[in-house]
Amino acid sequence: MASHRARRRVPPTTIRRLSAYFRVLSEQERQNAAAISSERLSELTGFTAAQVRRDLAYFGSFGKRGVGYAVTTLRGQLASILGIDRRWRVGLVGVGNLGKALLFYRGFADQGFEFVAAFDIDPAKIGTTLGALEVQPISNLAASAPGDRVDIVLVAVPADAAQSVVDGAVAAGVRAILNFAPVQLRVPPDVRLSNVDLSMEVEYLTYSLTT
Amino acid sequence: MASHRARRRVPPTTIRRLSAYFRVLSEQERQNAAAISSERLSELTGFTAAQVRRDLAYFGSFGKRGVGYAVTTLRGQLASILGIDRRWRVGLVGVGNLGKALLFYRGFADQGFEFVAAFDIDPAKIGTTLGALEVQPISNLAASAPGDRVDIVLVAVPADAAQSVVDGAVAAGVRAILNFAPVQLRVPPDVRLSNVDLSMEVEYLTYSLTT
Repeated sequence: MASHRARRRVPPTTIRRLSAYFRVLSEQERQNAAAISSERLSELTGFTAAQVRRDLAYFGSFGKRGVGYAVTTLRGQLASILGIDRRWRVGLVGVGNLGKALLFYRGFADQGFEFVAAFDIDPAKIGTTLGALEVQPISNLAASAPGDRVDIVLVAVPADAAQSVVDGAVAAGVRAILNFAPVQLRVPPDVRLSNVDLSMEVEYLTYSLTT
Repeated sequence: MASHRARRRVPPTTIRRLSAYFRVLSEQERQNAAAISSERLSELTGFTAAQVRRDLAYFGSFGKRGVGYAVTTLRGQLASILGIDRRWRVGLVGVGNLGKALLFYRGFADQGFEFVAAFDIDPAKIGTTLGALEVQPISNLAASAPGDRVDIVLVAVPADAAQSVVDGAVAAGVRAILNFAPVQLRVPPDVRLSNVDLSMEVEYLTYSLTT
């Protein structure tokens, strides 16, 4: 396997392709397929077979000529690389429409995301129940006991509230943030921040519609 | 400007960077900045200044040495390239939590997305009102008059319902689909399909947390 240093240099586009391979392998496993060729992975993901081989070789996985990749083994390797072979304790901040959509999004549960807490600033929402969670005041994020700590905070608040939420989460010791608010956020260098800007996803479609 | 053929070959990662530049330029325009350097665009987006210059030169925009790029002009060019300098008539299919989140997501309204119709299959939801829209039975998508046609359909239904929704939309003449269901969909070659897989966004974060 590549060293930690080498893995740090993997570009985001490669990781996205690994995610796509992982989905295909999960589906193949459900269908009890033992092996899959790079050509078939290419067909099912839309990336070229050469790209598939290059990506997987990068992480030390090589298919056998005429046989392909062992589905279960490769799926397990990718799960480990992607960090989804374990449980992640997730805290949700903001239980509006977007927050609720994220809380009940099936894809998250499938990959080890366990929502352990939900927070909001709105007194009308605090104390209400969402699934198995009672919505807590946001001040509880900082006050939670070490055993209740969250690994990742999902930010689903309006853009103008997001920075103060993030500042509070960072002060409470959170070191990984997934931001859905359409705004650029600042975090200290030791905090991992990923942004999901839904309108940027849309722009790739509108771009392609104008060409 | 590049020809249509040349624009077709632009990789998705470049378009995502253009989206990021566009956001920075919009913010600069709000602050009445007349010009911005590639170095400042680099600082505000996290891409290198060389990458910024390469991306913008690709689309025919060149900053002036010592002055930089004209903010309003470049913002307008990017809006045009990204196809967000016009209105897009958008139909939403599925008004669960995710659908509602998308309908009220502020980022969409800012970029010319106009929701003109909302559809669902659930009799309990049909006839209810969301914002200015009355939820219609999904069969209305095919029946809508040419003047009511939608440019883009947003699919926000459960994974196992998504393919039949897409098939119906395609049969109704829709040629652009933005899919939020965590499933690979099949469309004819003349239909544009973009997938937003929220769990793939998460995997980049969990990957980075394990390195």
